[in-house]
Amino acid sequence: MQSIRRTSSSATLSPPVIEVLKRPLATQLATVNPSGSPQQTIMWFKSEDGHFLFTTTTDRVKFRNYQHDPRASLTILDPENMRKWVIITGPLSVDHRDPLAFYQSLAEHYLDEKRLAEWRRTAVLERRTVLRLTPQRIRTMGFPDV
Amino acid sequence: MQSIRRTSSSATLSPPVIEVLKRPLATQLATVNPSGSPQQTIMWFKSEDGHFLFTTTTDRVKFRNYQHDPRASLTILDPENMRKWVIITGPLSVDHRDPLAFYQSLAEHYLDEKRLAEWRRTAVLERRTVLRLTPQRIRTMGFPDV
Repeated sequence: MQSIRRTSSSATLSPPVIEVLKRPLATQLATVNPSGSPQQTIMWFKSEDGHFLFTTTTDRVKFRNYQHDPRASLTILDPENMRKWVIITGPLSVDHRDPLAFYQSLAEHYLDEKRLAEWRRTAVLERRTVLRLTPQRIRTMGFPDV
Repeated sequence: MQSIRRTSSSATLSPPVIEVLKRPLATQLATVNPSGSPQQTIMWFKSEDGHFLFTTTTDRVKFRNYQHDPRASLTILDPENMRKWVIITGPLSVDHRDPLAFYQSLAEHYLDEKRLAEWRRTAVLERRTVLRLTPQRIRTMGFPDV
């Protein structure tokens, strides 16, 4: 099987990519520190209408980085196939939905019952906010052309 | 099981981390574009004496970014467990070993026989170079304390 590497500047996700993004996968979110060095964190995400939503707290490095410079990048890799991935760049912005309801829905998407019970005991709810990444450029590998 | 989040500034990998890094896992390498936005790529890597080695070609974005600013970050996630990861920051430098021999050894580490045959037909060998990341800061989650 030939690998399919495709770079799109249309900022639109194709249906096979949207399908994979429904799975509870990890994303690596990259921002830039005020010093100019790169910063990465492992995040839960929700893909919605072609955008990406995360939750963090306003005292964390990635939120302070966003306030300093909203430009970000994220990668999502198929855990069963290193040759199947999505890399997206675009600006972050604050999304004004209820952060606690959003965090709860993410936890239910990612965690089984046992882990969800643990999450309910330990989740950091204070200063929680929702960040949205609006794709400007999408690169993919391993997806069929549509 | 409690998750174990540990931040080390010692820049030294613990034995359980070194063990995981022997596996043919993907890494997300982040650099910074000259414009100041973050850039991420999915890479093969080799962990050697606490450092990380990659290969790229000198005409690719990540190499040009390294020439502009050597500061980088990499993430390695256990594909079976999103709560087990390593994030490392540090500078990149050019490693002067034979890039083609290194690329070959990486391909043999990552690919099965069938894919290796395909790699031999399609690998880009021109302008190939080896980059080394020297850890300055290591964050881990999900590993036992040692």
